[in-house]
Amino acid sequence: MQTENIDHIGIAVEDIEKAISLYQEKFGMKVVHRETLQDRGLKVAFLVGEKGETAIELLEPINHEDMNNTVAKFLKNRGPGLHHVALKVGDIKKSLEELQNQGMTLVDKEPRKGARGHLVAFLHPKSAMGTLVELVQEHNVH
Amino acid sequence: MQTENIDHIGIAVEDIEKAISLYQEKFGMKVVHRETLQDRGLKVAFLVGEKGETAIELLEPINHEDMNNTVAKFLKNRGPGLHHVALKVGDIKKSLEELQNQGMTLVDKEPRKGARGHLVAFLHPKSAMGTLVELVQEHNVH
Repeated sequence: MQTENIDHIGIAVEDIEKAISLYQEKFGMKVVHRETLQDRGLKVAFLVGEKGETAIELLEPINHEDMNNTVAKFLKNRGPGLHHVALKVGDIKKSLEELQNQGMTLVDKEPRKGARGHLVAFLHPKSAMGTLVELVQEHNVH
Repeated sequence: MQTENIDHIGIAVEDIEKAISLYQEKFGMKVVHRETLQDRGLKVAFLVGEKGETAIELLEPINHEDMNNTVAKFLKNRGPGLHHVALKVGDIKKSLEELQNQGMTLVDKEPRKGARGHLVAFLHPKSAMGTLVELVQEHNVH
């Protein structure tokens, strides 16, 4: 596959409102998107710098006690902090096929709808030396 | 302070040669810089996507047994994976002053020379909700 850019860095937080304040007030970043992903049980916010395309995605579980929620489990086990890195690709379906043919372990074998209406898929951290990697393809609704 | 862009994401790895191969061969990224930082006891490599400015920085300690090396300690305690996020700023000295005035805890009170000859400084993770944040100012030698 061909990475075009780093789309975003996912950061797990205990309180998304406090985290947004931190990134706005201390680091001078601005919120470009907010969304509640009911199917993933997450509240998310995307923030960018003055000139940048690559975003920080803040993630807070809707229910912190739900240990089936991977972010709630992550917070419980490791505490808040860096959670995943998302690589932007032109063709996510082809990228997943190529990675699978190269022996990579996929969490999502098919792309699904993620935040911002984009197509997303996660790879297993064991395939990427401990890093949780997400693929993102910008999806334009026709 | 004003974040311009996400400069890079730092990822701690056990074997930088294997990690470079992964990011090149599986994710189609290319190496734009390699360096050994003797003062920090690290081998580092920066990789970018086809269109992107934001890099992935792979970090391997020169001596994996040196528990005074923060990356070696990180690998021992948490295993390989996402290590820090670096925010690009226009004026790092001013940014550090502002953050300190706002009550943030700094690891480096003064900028120092980091990879690629840039000026860098780390903030304490407790100031940024568990995330290790680095500031980077591009340094042009005059």
